[in-house]
Amino acid sequence: MRFLHPRTTRSVNGRRTRYLGIASSLRESIRDGQLAAGEYLPSSRELSRQYQVHRHTVLVALDTLLSEGWVVAEPRRGYRVCPQVPEAQAKRDRGSAVFRGFRIVRAGSSLPASVDEVPYPLHAALADPALIPRRELRAAYAHVLERPRSRIFDQLDDRGLRELRNAVSVYLRRVRAVVPEDLLLTHGSQEAISLVAQALLAPGDGVAMEEPGYPPARDAFRAAGAEVLPIPVDAQGLSIEHLRAALDKQKSKVRLVYVTPTHQYPTTVSLSGTRRDELLGLTLERGIPILEDDYDHEYHYRGSPPAPLAASGAPHVLYVSTFSKLIGPTFRVGWIAARPELIDALVQLRRTSTRANDAVTAAALADWMQDGGFERHVRRARRCYAERCAAAVDSLELLRQDGLIEFQAPSGGMSIWARFPGIDSERLAARARERGVLVAPEYLLGVRGRGNGVRLAFARLAPARFREAVAILAEVARC
Amino acid sequence: MRFLHPRTTRSVNGRRTRYLGIASSLRESIRDGQLAAGEYLPSSRELSRQYQVHRHTVLVALDTLLSEGWVVAEPRRGYRVCPQVPEAQAKRDRGSAVFRGFRIVRAGSSLPASVDEVPYPLHAALADPALIPRRELRAAYAHVLERPRSRIFDQLDDRGLRELRNAVSVYLRRVRAVVPEDLLLTHGSQEAISLVAQALLAPGDGVAMEEPGYPPARDAFRAAGAEVLPIPVDAQGLSIEHLRAALDKQKSKVRLVYVTPTHQYPTTVSLSGTRRDELLGLTLERGIPILEDDYDHEYHYRGSPPAPLAASGAPHVLYVSTFSKLIGPTFRVGWIAARPELIDALVQLRRTSTRANDAVTAAALADWMQDGGFERHVRRARRCYAERCAAAVDSLELLRQDGLIEFQAPSGGMSIWARFPGIDSERLAARARERGVLVAPEYLLGVRGRGNGVRLAFARLAPARFREAVAILAEVARC
Repeated sequence: MRFLHPRTTRSVNGRRTRYLGIASSLRESIRDGQLAAGEYLPSSRELSRQYQVHRHTVLVALDTLLSEGWVVAEPRRGYRVCPQVPEAQAKRDRGSAVFRGFRIVRAGSSLPASVDEVPYPLHAALADPALIPRRELRAAYAHVLERPRSRIFDQLDDRGLRELRNAVSVYLRRVRAVVPEDLLLTHGSQEAISLVAQALLAPGDGVAMEEPGYPPARDAFRAAGAEVLPIPVDAQGLSIEHLRAALDKQKSKVRLVYVTPTHQYPTTVSLSGTRRDELLGLTLERGIPILEDDYDHEYHYRGSPPAPLAASGAPHVLYVSTFSKLIGPTFRVGWIAARPELIDALVQLRRTSTRANDAVTAAALADWMQDGGFERHVRRARRCYAERCAAAVDSLELLRQDGLIEFQAPSGGMSIWARFPGIDSERLAARARERGVLVAPEYLLGVRGRGNGVRLAFARLAPARFREAVAILAEVARC
Repeated sequence: MRFLHPRTTRSVNGRRTRYLGIASSLRESIRDGQLAAGEYLPSSRELSRQYQVHRHTVLVALDTLLSEGWVVAEPRRGYRVCPQVPEAQAKRDRGSAVFRGFRIVRAGSSLPASVDEVPYPLHAALADPALIPRRELRAAYAHVLERPRSRIFDQLDDRGLRELRNAVSVYLRRVRAVVPEDLLLTHGSQEAISLVAQALLAPGDGVAMEEPGYPPARDAFRAAGAEVLPIPVDAQGLSIEHLRAALDKQKSKVRLVYVTPTHQYPTTVSLSGTRRDELLGLTLERGIPILEDDYDHEYHYRGSPPAPLAASGAPHVLYVSTFSKLIGPTFRVGWIAARPELIDALVQLRRTSTRANDAVTAAALADWMQDGGFERHVRRARRCYAERCAAAVDSLELLRQDGLIEFQAPSGGMSIWARFPGIDSERLAARARERGVLVAPEYLLGVRGRGNGVRLAFARLAPARFREAVAILAEVARC
């Protein structure tokens, strides 16, 4: 159960995680008075023996109680019950028994978002943090904080730090042939998608997107009250024929088309050139904006990546991308390039929520980009992932020869889309999870569920570990 | 007009800012072919002469064209028209003539959000960035980026970096007597307010809040479809009598009460002890959660600040605060302490938008807090603002003696609330603006407009500059 987010109180199947059980038991002991205010708790070794768990689990439980204010840490003496707390807690508990005011109106997301200490995390197509050149970044941060009259502590630019906007614009123009007319920095591509959903969609509107497709985008469209129309994907990407049919039906008026043309999420298929033109023409003709999510453009291993739709200069393409795939998932800096009137609307919306990115990190990234370090890093990462991709394909070949899976060697991306014809994706994922292998199953990636596809991310794993995971998947698929 | 946000294309009164006019003129010249692809632009000195503006304004205009991709910068040779761009732009312009797909469904905010290069920025109650100990912060960032096996590049904790959550919890417990049951880090307090609005409010719900009150909170409630019920504020803070009347009316069902009890925004009045108890009792009895925004708690200059409502341990208080007032506005790290079931819902919502804060800055802040540096900084800032507050009161005394204004010397906060009995706040603010003095006028701070109150922020200005601004206000109020 430790694969789940550590602060989730209930796991998917309703059981509590271990350390939370221990925290809860200790909390009850404090409430009962078994552990009095100010009293020292047994040592973590003793607790580890009592609960028959690893001492690490006890420490995580104690850390939880610490952050909740039930216990205080005394250096070299251990933990004791907080002298002041029980009273406040008792009041709170009395109060909570009568308070019924939280009617939570909406919330919902499909995939577990963050996963700690998973032996084989093949579900998350994340950059490998080991590739990040810490020394260069450290120099960039130091440089930013050394500037004698730097304005970074004072300037809250609604569109994002000007120097980073400029660096991103130059980069997009040079590397991706995209000329941003206007640019807004966001917290990852996800905030950009969410803002677009809020700005362009009203309840009842339709959004056409790929099926299977990117669940957080779907969640953002639904949070805005829109209906998601799933459009099938084949070996050339989004089916334009099906898209046209969906637009013609107009059960709900389609107001936005969301696509991942460079490496389709989750199949990594590139949208073919013909379809690109068809998609641009069809949507322009119907007056429907395209939200293009180009999240890992540079990670293309056969020739150059295809040009983004936005490189056409078409006015109705909203171009979204992010540093989080190119550097690491904790760098929550993304951007959207679009026409100024739309960017203005997004800026207005964002004033009521997050307002701006962290300025120190933004300035450090700008510094690193101007210095050429960012591009060197991306080139290095690309080479590494190309090797891991080839090794992953080799590992999976054995399963293909056994008839266990079907897949196409990808041209790019950070994962491989495979089908296990003998087993549906929900069962496969559940069984694999029991063995410590997490995969992203098709039933969670589409609107209609089911299917036997799974997404196997290779970028973050050493080839040997990916191979071990594949061996487990083979066993799971066989039985 | 340079007081406005530099990328806002239209100012409040409909005229364009100067540099945007120049950018637009150059853009047209490129479109017309007067400036051909690849051609060098006249030098910035020459352009400055042609347009009869300061050379700095020309450079900002060129920077805008640079970030839009119209021109490229050639070191030591100036700017020239981008060789590839005109074609893409021409296409885009053709396309934009026929594309009509952007129907923007909502956007709206009241106060100009960020202001560059204002001579007298008395409208924005911001921390003074000059007080930030750069050296300490630099050490904290370096320390974070030096850790050999740091997980900060890999861990995307939905509730925010654990070490910062713990540091904030400890701080709240020790300094504000608030014991967080569960805590979520957000992008400033504004994201927390926005998430609460999304989680607890449905269209048609009512939110009671102070009038005058904090406009971005009001915007967030309205963005969630809620109706804002303004409750008057007097010398003891929010009027409980009026609140009770509003709850009894129930024209729209009140689902949330938003308050700033420590230093009411914008009057800086502290909610009296009796009213605190009444507010807690009334809302608990009616089952209505309180959103307590305690944005600048430590900046209290007469004795200790009042205990937050959340220190009562009442289960229905959602406690929001932020580093942006305590450190600087570009540190977009805030938090919300609330019951775990609500935090869970907020986390779910945030997965569809920003997901998590920047991890490097979060880790650096945690480091700085653990080291004691943060508290030292807050103490230093408090002393400085206390002095500036006293000096500001002295400056305003002269106007009071002349009968131009009425005000109470504040017990805390970063601004002084003053009434100009002879002139309404809209006219005063407009006239002052012409003279380079920005103030936050009452007509923008309430639901019903009008009033002759203005908020005069002193924290970020040296006392001498505040005095100059007050002299200008006196002239403006007189004529």
